[in-house]
Amino acid sequence: MSQETTEQTIKVGVIGAGGRMGRMLIEAVQNNPKTILNAAIERQGSSLVGADAGEVAAIGRLEVQIVDVLEAVINDIDVLIDFSLPDATEKNMQVCAEHNVAMVIGTTGFNEAQEQVLAKASEKIAIVYAGNYSTGINLSLKLLGMAAKAFGNEADVEIIEAHHKHKIDAPSGTAYMMAEAVAEARGQNLKDVAIYGREGQTGERESGTIGIHAVRGGEIVGDHTVMFIADGEVVEITHRARERMTFAAGAVRAATWVTEQAIGQYDMQDVLGLND
Amino acid sequence: MSQETTEQTIKVGVIGAGGRMGRMLIEAVQNNPKTILNAAIERQGSSLVGADAGEVAAIGRLEVQIVDVLEAVINDIDVLIDFSLPDATEKNMQVCAEHNVAMVIGTTGFNEAQEQVLAKASEKIAIVYAGNYSTGINLSLKLLGMAAKAFGNEADVEIIEAHHKHKIDAPSGTAYMMAEAVAEARGQNLKDVAIYGREGQTGERESGTIGIHAVRGGEIVGDHTVMFIADGEVVEITHRARERMTFAAGAVRAATWVTEQAIGQYDMQDVLGLND
Amino acid sequence: MSQETTEQTIKVGVIGAGGRMGRMLIEAVQNNPKTILNAAIERQGSSLVGADAGEVAAIGRLEVQIVDVLEAVINDIDVLIDFSLPDATEKNMQVCAEHNVAMVIGTTGFNEAQEQVLAKASEKIAIVYAGNYSTGINLSLKLLGMAAKAFGNEADVEIIEAHHKHKIDAPSGTAYMMAEAVAEARGQNLKDVAIYGREGQTGERESGTIGIHAVRGGEIVGDHTVMFIADGEVVEITHRARERMTFAAGAVRAATWVTEQAIGQYDMQDVLGLND
Amino acid sequence: MSQETTEQTIKVGVIGAGGRMGRMLIEAVQNNPKTILNAAIERQGSSLVGADAGEVAAIGRLEVQIVDVLEAVINDIDVLIDFSLPDATEKNMQVCAEHNVAMVIGTTGFNEAQEQVLAKASEKIAIVYAGNYSTGINLSLKLLGMAAKAFGNEADVEIIEAHHKHKIDAPSGTAYMMAEAVAEARGQNLKDVAIYGREGQTGERESGTIGIHAVRGGEIVGDHTVMFIADGEVVEITHRARERMTFAAGAVRAATWVTEQAIGQYDMQDVLGLND
Repeated sequence: MSQETTEQTIKVGVIGAGGRMGRMLIEAVQNNPKTILNAAIERQGSSLVGADAGEVAAIGRLEVQIVDVLEAVINDIDVLIDFSLPDATEKNMQVCAEHNVAMVIGTTGFNEAQEQVLAKASEKIAIVYAGNYSTGINLSLKLLGMAAKAFGNEADVEIIEAHHKHKIDAPSGTAYMMAEAVAEARGQNLKDVAIYGREGQTGERESGTIGIHAVRGGEIVGDHTVMFIADGEVVEITHRARERMTFAAGAVRAATWVTEQAIGQYDMQDVLGLND
Repeated sequence: MSQETTEQTIKVGVIGAGGRMGRMLIEAVQNNPKTILNAAIERQGSSLVGADAGEVAAIGRLEVQIVDVLEAVINDIDVLIDFSLPDATEKNMQVCAEHNVAMVIGTTGFNEAQEQVLAKASEKIAIVYAGNYSTGINLSLKLLGMAAKAFGNEADVEIIEAHHKHKIDAPSGTAYMMAEAVAEARGQNLKDVAIYGREGQTGERESGTIGIHAVRGGEIVGDHTVMFIADGEVVEITHRARERMTFAAGAVRAATWVTEQAIGQYDMQDVLGLND
Repeated sequence: MSQETTEQTIKVGVIGAGGRMGRMLIEAVQNNPKTILNAAIERQGSSLVGADAGEVAAIGRLEVQIVDVLEAVINDIDVLIDFSLPDATEKNMQVCAEHNVAMVIGTTGFNEAQEQVLAKASEKIAIVYAGNYSTGINLSLKLLGMAAKAFGNEADVEIIEAHHKHKIDAPSGTAYMMAEAVAEARGQNLKDVAIYGREGQTGERESGTIGIHAVRGGEIVGDHTVMFIADGEVVEITHRARERMTFAAGAVRAATWVTEQAIGQYDMQDVLGLND
Repeated sequence: MSQETTEQTIKVGVIGAGGRMGRMLIEAVQNNPKTILNAAIERQGSSLVGADAGEVAAIGRLEVQIVDVLEAVINDIDVLIDFSLPDATEKNMQVCAEHNVAMVIGTTGFNEAQEQVLAKASEKIAIVYAGNYSTGINLSLKLLGMAAKAFGNEADVEIIEAHHKHKIDAPSGTAYMMAEAVAEARGQNLKDVAIYGREGQTGERESGTIGIHAVRGGEIVGDHTVMFIADGEVVEITHRARERMTFAAGAVRAATWVTEQAIGQYDMQDVLGLND
């Protein structure tokens, strides 16, 4: 490490430093005034090993050389951010647990054995493990559940999402998560109540259903609106994503939070104080 | 007639004075500072014949007694507003043509013979004949056509409409009119390009299609948004109806306009100056 | 009383039965399947004493005669809804406390002595006391506080409200409540951070401020949008009121809830389960 | 020139090729299937003279060397796009007029003498000269004028714009253009009717005024909504800019259009067919 730090600055390591997400994480670490990049790790054999992590991320030289062995830098960091693949993350969890380094994990697709490694590591270190690190999405999911409970049967729920024209499936994964948050809060099974389009003689709207509408066009990054339509009033919760950087920034926020937590496993709603 | 009028005040007669639309028309006539109710007509046999038109409309006594024969009052009015049934309107057109009284017609469902009566009457008097008298809807249809031409293939078009939970069909008639305005401006046949919902592996959005989404819930009177989604920018045209009164007010606006026109047949876009 | 009820049906009394709010409350009581109107009270000297409460509310005869003394009907009801004036409500609280009848109070403007009567009554009966009985507004206030906490300094907050052209002050009371919910969650004093319009050379936006914008036009009943604008994403919480009936319906919902509660004082967020 | 072209491909030159707008124009020229970059010009003394225009624009080698004298390449192009400074554009207009090369000009701030050079050049070649080349903004301005005329005094107009937190003035130039389009269509002077915020005892909304509200936050590129609020309905026209590239793409669209026009001066509304 070479940059100036105060005792309060949190020293961060990033796995997969040369990948698309890794580069954004490096930029987000440097953008956050509380954190500093102190280690950057790539897989063995990558041509980027030895390069400067800042230059790879196109944010200027940081004097942090990319290495290919986590153990070589594990004592230089307070927390490791890992958005990679299950097998790599499995090993990284073991190394972090051994060296008392906190983790922020965005890797998805763990098998059962890997879930157990996660559980065991959580008995030694503090780990944030979440499928989505956006403050706005996590917040919206929490708000949706509360709104669904408060309105109960009083309101009809409809979801409208919009994405770019290149998206090949519908609705979006986030729209499904939102619909499930509503269904769960109302004690429903989403499959029983989801409606994906209306045309022709539909009859009156059946109470308790959830309409989900997928708009496609242009280069829209991702908008979601959930409407709670009561007879005399409407509440809408809308999330608009402008750029993917927001996910990296959320992971770094989790990194600043997790270093102050007791041993255990947490999710992004814990980081955001939404579970208090 | 009994109320005070200036020479400029336009004297209006209303057909079907006791019906739901008739009552709103009476209220709208009295709300418009340029017009005054001077005749109110109901079908023969109605129990409301002889009653005061203002009291029937729940807006206070107007000293205009409801009659059951148009000829009895035809010389008291400058313009007749007729939102009734084809057979009744057919006769009313003949009476108005004979007495040089202008007309505003909202009746739908004319057969061919009745269309010819309309054409012939239009050679003697000025008539506004439209399927929808809302300023906002007529304006929106005009704007949509212009937007579709300006964007051409540059923008993807998606339409979102929202109506109350009791509506038994989808999409709304207005949504179809909007989609057709776009398709026509782009030289398309709506049937070939309309998409009514997306679910599963849809593949990329096909250029030139028009997505139409029907939201249902609560007591929403009627909202329509048309999105033109280009790669770097989006234009949206939104119409929100708050109450049906707006259609009556539009008809009265047409009544003030038609009394100053040359003989001929006009539509609401003429009234609004959108065809200049 | 004369209508058919089951043991589960909650018998409701309404204070100020002939007033605008009273009539809506009567209609809302009859609309709610769990409740039935069993008493209607007006002030002494009202010409409506002796009239049928349903006919006064224009919803058809209910066989409930309006009386002018609460004590005469207090044993016929489970819960009293009181949206009237502080002096009247003060007496009604004493009567209800004596007869073990729950209350839903929407009266505003209590003085200190009256607040104490409320506190004392709450030691004998269950009382819901709230300034606003709309599900959507209460829910929105709760969600705003959570969003403000989750975003912290990450997001800029801007509020846009829209009301009809006749409104003579700005911003709306609800907009102030929303702004205060945000300010409180962030540990701010609203007066220090509120901005009511921007024009000219404003300089960059100061972090921590709350912009509040009052749109006025037409007959808009009341819309409110609070935007949380982070660098890479935006969350919006929107409330649209369509009609005042929603407040009456909320009060009746509170009435069905309060009859099952232990002695004590509650607000609408308790009724909606938002304080759990 | 070195790329493959068909006879129909329009050969484009770009002034200021190394500047921020110049680079976007080069990318937009290459993105448009009808156009190809065939000349790139920088000011004398620029270190980029001699470099490859495509590499400067970070879109890959195009084999078009940046030159510093327009005359050297004027015979290689059908149309010149010039977003530079008045003095430079003045000379470029003379060169283009002499060599019968059409122009698309986005330069602003001409003095009177330069306006005359423009007028004279327009007698020899076809020139598009506009302050804003976005399809959406030009379209929106046209639609606003039509909406203002159609609604007349029936609707209250309110404008809401939103921009990033770094913007130091308010409202935006585009918001002013939109407000002026409405005022002009209603025969008003904007200064007499603009309202920039409401707080306190404002009294009822004065008919004919235009409310303009400036939202600031995060990294919003630029959103504008104009509301026409009639008593029973609302029409909204919204424009959302996602990225500045849209302006470059509009200029290239103008370039493809102007090569087929008769001699004369045109604006972007002509290009978009909005003046027909």
